[in-house]
Amino acid sequence: MRKVTLGVANSLDNFIARKDHAVDWLSWTDEVNDIMTEFWKTIDTVVMGRKTYEVAVENGMTAYPGVANYVFSRTMKKSPDKRVKIIAEDAVEFIWRPKGQEGKGICLMGGGELARPLFEANLIDEISLNIQPLLLGSGIPLFHAMVRQIDLEPLVCKVLRSSSIYVTYRVKRAQH
Amino acid sequence: MRKVTLGVANSLDNFIARKDHAVDWLSWTDEVNDIMTEFWKTIDTVVMGRKTYEVAVENGMTAYPGVANYVFSRTMKKSPDKRVKIIAEDAVEFIWRPKGQEGKGICLMGGGELARPLFEANLIDEISLNIQPLLLGSGIPLFHAMVRQIDLEPLVCKVLRSSSIYVTYRVKRAQH
Repeated sequence: MRKVTLGVANSLDNFIARKDHAVDWLSWTDEVNDIMTEFWKTIDTVVMGRKTYEVAVENGMTAYPGVANYVFSRTMKKSPDKRVKIIAEDAVEFIWRPKGQEGKGICLMGGGELARPLFEANLIDEISLNIQPLLLGSGIPLFHAMVRQIDLEPLVCKVLRSSSIYVTYRVKRAQH
Repeated sequence: MRKVTLGVANSLDNFIARKDHAVDWLSWTDEVNDIMTEFWKTIDTVVMGRKTYEVAVENGMTAYPGVANYVFSRTMKKSPDKRVKIIAEDAVEFIWRPKGQEGKGICLMGGGELARPLFEANLIDEISLNIQPLLLGSGIPLFHAMVRQIDLEPLVCKVLRSSSIYVTYRVKRAQH
C-alpha cells in the first residue's frame, strides 16, 4: 500500500498562493530543505494539478528530479519538460491503481482543487503542512469545501527557525 | 496599552462552526480548561459578534463570569443576560478607546466577521488558536478576506493530549 501525502506550504488563513498566484511570501530555508530531503527519500512520485504546475513552471521548476512527475489536466497537451507526464484521466482513478501496490510514497504537491476529490475518495493518508506565519488576506485556497468531515491525528508539530509551523497529520480512515 | 487577543478554536480548514453553527466537533478537555484558566487571569473583558453570541446562548452560555461581556450588534435590542452589554457602535471605535488605556487584556472570542475589521484596523495583538484535528469540509469561516496581509510571530505551539494544536501568535504591526 503506497502512502499518499498532501505536502504543501500554506498561510494560517488557508491559502497556498496570492490571487495572482504569487508565492513570494513563502520562506524556504535550509531547515525546510533538510525536512524535504528526508521526505524525498520516502517517495518516488509527485502529482499536482495543472494550475499548481503552471505556477511552478513560472517559478522555474519544470520537473522534480529523481521522481516520476505527473500533472493532471484535461486541457494541457504537452508539458514544457519531457520528464513530466500530463494525465487527462480522472485523478481519483489514476491514484487509486498504484496506491494499492507495493512501493514508495506518492506526494500530492497541490493544489486544493486536486486534493478535494482525493480526500473525498479516501486516498490521502497524510498531510504535511508548512504553515507560514501570516494571514495572506486573500488568495488561492488550500482546503476546499468537501462533502464530509475528515478526522486527523497529528504526528509531528514543531516551530521552525523561520517561524513557520511544520505539522504532519495522519488521515483517519472514514468508517463505512 | 491593553492587549487584544483573538481566542478561538478552529478546524484545520479555517472554520469555527459547521454551516448550521454546530460546534459538536470541538473537544473541551481539562488541559484546555487549564490553559483558559491561566489566560482568563490576564483579561477583564470579552467581546464577540452577535452571531457567535447567539450560538453561545444556544449552547447554554449567556455570559462569562468575572469579566465585562460585550456583544456587537446593530439589530439585537437586549441580551438574555443582564451581565451582557449589547454594543451598536462600530467595533473598531469601541475597541480603540479602551485599548489605549492601562488595564487587563480584552479577548475577542469570535467570530470571523468581527475579527476582520479589527485586524485591518491593527487592533489585534495576539491570536490564540486551538486547532482541532480535522477538516470540517464546510462551515462558518474564521479568517475572512482582508485588504492586506498580516504578519505573525509564533509564541507558543504544542500538541495537546486531545490531539488539538494549541498555537499563539503575536501580530506584527503593519509598517506605515
